[in-house]
Amino acid sequence: MPKPLGTDARKREQLSSQDRFAWPLARVGILGGGQLARMMTKKAKKLGCWVSVLDPDASAPAGQVAAEQVVGSFDDIEALRTLAARCDVVTFDTEHVDASLLLKLEAEGHRFFPSPSLLALVQDKLEQKQVFLAHGLPTSRFAALPADTPAGLRAFGFPLVQKARRGGYDGRGVVVIRGEEQLSRALKGATYAEELVDIEKELAVIVARSVSGEVRSFPLVEMVFDPRSHQLDTLLAPAAVPYEVFDAAQALAKKTVEAFGAVGVVGVEMFLTKTGQLLLNEIAPRPHNSGHYTLEACVTCQFEQHFRAILDLPLGRTDQLQPAAMINLVGESGPRGSAEVVGLRAALAVPGASVHIYGKSESWPMRKMGHVTVLAPTLDEASARVAAVRKVLRIYGGD
Amino acid sequence: MPKPLGTDARKREQLSSQDRFAWPLARVGILGGGQLARMMTKKAKKLGCWVSVLDPDASAPAGQVAAEQVVGSFDDIEALRTLAARCDVVTFDTEHVDASLLLKLEAEGHRFFPSPSLLALVQDKLEQKQVFLAHGLPTSRFAALPADTPAGLRAFGFPLVQKARRGGYDGRGVVVIRGEEQLSRALKGATYAEELVDIEKELAVIVARSVSGEVRSFPLVEMVFDPRSHQLDTLLAPAAVPYEVFDAAQALAKKTVEAFGAVGVVGVEMFLTKTGQLLLNEIAPRPHNSGHYTLEACVTCQFEQHFRAILDLPLGRTDQLQPAAMINLVGESGPRGSAEVVGLRAALAVPGASVHIYGKSESWPMRKMGHVTVLAPTLDEASARVAAVRKVLRIYGGD
Repeated sequence: MPKPLGTDARKREQLSSQDRFAWPLARVGILGGGQLARMMTKKAKKLGCWVSVLDPDASAPAGQVAAEQVVGSFDDIEALRTLAARCDVVTFDTEHVDASLLLKLEAEGHRFFPSPSLLALVQDKLEQKQVFLAHGLPTSRFAALPADTPAGLRAFGFPLVQKARRGGYDGRGVVVIRGEEQLSRALKGATYAEELVDIEKELAVIVARSVSGEVRSFPLVEMVFDPRSHQLDTLLAPAAVPYEVFDAAQALAKKTVEAFGAVGVVGVEMFLTKTGQLLLNEIAPRPHNSGHYTLEACVTCQFEQHFRAILDLPLGRTDQLQPAAMINLVGESGPRGSAEVVGLRAALAVPGASVHIYGKSESWPMRKMGHVTVLAPTLDEASARVAAVRKVLRIYGGD
Repeated sequence: MPKPLGTDARKREQLSSQDRFAWPLARVGILGGGQLARMMTKKAKKLGCWVSVLDPDASAPAGQVAAEQVVGSFDDIEALRTLAARCDVVTFDTEHVDASLLLKLEAEGHRFFPSPSLLALVQDKLEQKQVFLAHGLPTSRFAALPADTPAGLRAFGFPLVQKARRGGYDGRGVVVIRGEEQLSRALKGATYAEELVDIEKELAVIVARSVSGEVRSFPLVEMVFDPRSHQLDTLLAPAAVPYEVFDAAQALAKKTVEAFGAVGVVGVEMFLTKTGQLLLNEIAPRPHNSGHYTLEACVTCQFEQHFRAILDLPLGRTDQLQPAAMINLVGESGPRGSAEVVGLRAALAVPGASVHIYGKSESWPMRKMGHVTVLAPTLDEASARVAAVRKVLRIYGGD
């Protein structure tokens, strides 16, 4: 443990209020050691922070670049307490953690951003929708459903989208039910129904809000999803929409983050309907897959912005310098095994391609292994070039 | 040690020739664990490499982000051999290493880029000048000097610049002798004399050359030096010079790197004289302080480009997206001690400012502790903003 960690918290706060920081600037903990935490860690260190991550996998992507890793489960209060005790502030790679444990640790005096109560709220997508409604933020019509009966679905009216209140992501926990004949698809457990919206585009805005309430948004982006896997297929930044939509979406995203009182970076997902309406879909209070392009394309990236926000430093400029397109690199179908990257040479030959490999030694089908951002003078060109990368670059699980 | 390190070298090479890479893409060693190695390590990992660094300081900046650090001296052949044996290729944070040891290890089959023979050559600035001359590359008139006698200096003619053949950097090992009355300043040991050139601007170009000979240059930049410390004061990118000079300087830099047969990234420093001539000053076969701005400002940064070059991957686009100005953050004069950063909040409030802290726990006068790059729509604006950062941001050695 580096020596300055000994400096007591009170003295650090006092110094900070005078714009003086003993190195390290702050001791930051990250709950979860995946790729988001890996990219977060690099930027936290750039700003002069010391970083510890908690993850059950001893070779977690973020553990490879952090000062240390606490190897342990997110459900283990002792592991969480160990991390929190070693850090000035703890933040998150994932929002799928037991918020009750965090609330307990918060009560013991440990600091978390975003707050455990916000995490608890957003973990329940139905509650998210209720907050949207309470603040007059536009979102599709929805209703809670009594568990395991078709009555509520019928009452809501077909066609509809049924969603699990908790735990769904990348298309899991979501079904479309177009009529009586599809009721067999219905999800079990705690769910809710949403109107099936006629979607023109799926959009996202990354917004940062600092401890003292400064708010900045990144450009509006378009997310194109793979219809089969429901994972992000291609991200286009900025979104090709009329400027009124662009501005309205950014304003809506900022208003949303302020409504939730979030601290840190928040991914705000929304739909643009065929009729030109913007409707909030959901929010994720952490750096977001739709913001990876900011690493290459923007003056400040989402990962650095997150730490500026939670450490209450001035937020950075978010101007985008060139159009960008991004794809995720997921493990190909086939066996699980040691990762093998095929076509890296060909991919790097595509002008403006920036390849990120996450340091995961094993690949399995659909596992997020890396991503590629391509910058180009026009969005069409960026999109064409990232498609060229997709054609040649593959990650397999080998022997 | 991660499991894939077991994969034997022959199999890795065979796979690579088919554009297939087992993770990690390559096991890279870096000799020296300072800030250059730290920024190199982050980018090597982004490309999917595993990184080990050798440095005598157990808390070296690069060791904090690498997979492992070999703690040892650059002069210790056993430490060097340990590093080399664990890696597919070894590269450098510094060129001040005993090349004879590297030549011995190269003969044992270990791989180094740049090559030990190139390092040996550039360590002797007189030999560098002789290579410039042999290849018809423009440089100021110079002559070797017999050690410790004023006769050679007189014969060369005043005014002149006397330089140590080895070990000089940041202004050390350089004196200007304007006439007989300044002979007492003369350096001892192996030195040479150079014509005192009437300098309009000091310029630099970062050039990358890959194993298979692909060459790309970054934009021409201007280096403004502190007249007292002789360290880089402000870097301006791109250099504000007529386009003919811009193009000629890039062509000269490429020709120079090809003349030396360097592999990797090379910093090529040159003078623009008052009469409009470009004269080579010296080269450094590694990522260079004058290329830090590429992290924020260019499509590919010098650190990633270095690994693309030494791993024989296609080089990246080097286009600059926005004008940039950069300053180094060096320890203030005063006591040596635990680093304290003053004015970080104020610095981050400057639009477009990106602050890099190198993770050095101790500060002392003139120690390189970090750097700041500012992007702005115009070079004048970038320059004004970086000057605003300099006014507020300081690093002291405290208790």
